[in-house]
Amino acid sequence: MSARIRIDGAPATVVDAGDRGLAYGDGLFETVLFVDGRAPLWRRHLARLALGCARLRLPAPDAAALAADCAAVTAGLPRAVVRITLTRGSGPRGYAQPAPLQPLRIVAAAAEAPLPRHWYWQGIRVRFCETRLAVQPLLAGIKHLNRLEQVLARAEWDDPAIAEGIVFDTEGRVVGATAANLFLVRDGCVSTPRVDRCGVAGVMRAELLDRLGEVRQGDIDVDELMQADEIFLSNAVRGVLLVTELGGRLWKPGPVGSRLVADLHTLGFGAAA
Amino acid sequence: MSARIRIDGAPATVVDAGDRGLAYGDGLFETVLFVDGRAPLWRRHLARLALGCARLRLPAPDAAALAADCAAVTAGLPRAVVRITLTRGSGPRGYAQPAPLQPLRIVAAAAEAPLPRHWYWQGIRVRFCETRLAVQPLLAGIKHLNRLEQVLARAEWDDPAIAEGIVFDTEGRVVGATAANLFLVRDGCVSTPRVDRCGVAGVMRAELLDRLGEVRQGDIDVDELMQADEIFLSNAVRGVLLVTELGGRLWKPGPVGSRLVADLHTLGFGAAA
Repeated sequence: MSARIRIDGAPATVVDAGDRGLAYGDGLFETVLFVDGRAPLWRRHLARLALGCARLRLPAPDAAALAADCAAVTAGLPRAVVRITLTRGSGPRGYAQPAPLQPLRIVAAAAEAPLPRHWYWQGIRVRFCETRLAVQPLLAGIKHLNRLEQVLARAEWDDPAIAEGIVFDTEGRVVGATAANLFLVRDGCVSTPRVDRCGVAGVMRAELLDRLGEVRQGDIDVDELMQADEIFLSNAVRGVLLVTELGGRLWKPGPVGSRLVADLHTLGFGAAA
Repeated sequence: MSARIRIDGAPATVVDAGDRGLAYGDGLFETVLFVDGRAPLWRRHLARLALGCARLRLPAPDAAALAADCAAVTAGLPRAVVRITLTRGSGPRGYAQPAPLQPLRIVAAAAEAPLPRHWYWQGIRVRFCETRLAVQPLLAGIKHLNRLEQVLARAEWDDPAIAEGIVFDTEGRVVGATAANLFLVRDGCVSTPRVDRCGVAGVMRAELLDRLGEVRQGDIDVDELMQADEIFLSNAVRGVLLVTELGGRLWKPGPVGSRLVADLHTLGFGAAA
């Protein structure tokens, strides 16, 4: 079996204990679905990574080297989830940037863990989280390594029948789920929370914005959410999942979400156990 | 020479690439000054670490094991800075807590890098940072590994004559400096920003609160800051540093701060080059 982890382009399994990714969460990541060696959303992942690098003042990684790493770690896996992690590398103690800067690139693959089949076709049960996300425009949108808020939100439940948790920002607006963006449909109009103050600009969110055409990106409160005709979640690995239970209300799978589930299935998303 | 890094109690220099400290910043740290093998603020560091563990639902580390690690890594160093890092350890992909939980403990020492002598006795020049810190009560006070805001703030300047940067929260209140708490004196009254919505509850801050007796912990805006008779910064390794230049205003070292510098010097803080 080929090595499933490459660090800076070579097989490895460990990183320097002084790496700034570990010290400060000083870096970025992407979680990429590969189907038969191909990532359907590869260009979107690269684009978001480049955006994150610009925001954190990191040099963007070499796309060819990244692709080569991904090919090596996914070899022999028909369906794989690859995590790409970029950090500012090691340096002396303190927040100041190390000079010279030597970023670290970790590419690790695992076989995809399929979800229960009925999640895709019947929808999922989700809950509200108490954990609120801070409003921070400087870090909003990018997929950085500072994810304690998501860890705390996800720790609020351990019932495996609950697929996700809906999170709000500290000012009461819907942000999305702990590891997904959120869309809602009302009277035929699609809306999704803006991601310029809080939340992640998901690559599957970007894919859906292109597929759906007109989507309102704005502020969504709990009332608007609960009055929706359809709610669905988007994730770069899972694709689209329809919400059928939240906060005491039930929904049947709706036409907009169901269509997306089917369309993304043909792209390779949504393998079920 | 004895090893300067111990991981889970044994000499080591690397960590598993799947550690959650690296993946999500899922952990805590302390930066501790050791003088002749003794940490003057040891109990305060342990107390803050315990508070952080409770907040992040991590088991508190064994104090005796931590002390033994520190003794090992500081052996032979008259003045050392020890970084203790605790993470939630390795686990499968995703924000959900791994079960069973196997936290990771890293203890690393380096010789103290002394500051310019005049910084202690003449004071320091500091600047205002543009980077604002998010308001997040769930993470305020504890010394967690999600430090991108501090990295971005510290990246705003590289003039070595500027010792620190003053940061505000997204609502315009003074939080402190990138790696220090802030105190000000006005008409004999001492104030410091509250740390229950934003910022770190520094161990040196706690030491100063005890030493100074009556200190107001509240909201401080830029006007109150600039009208202060004295401003000084506190840090667990550097001790107290007096601010003598900020935002176009100059201060002379004042009596409250100067007294603290002298008192902390007898405790071992403030070695100068």
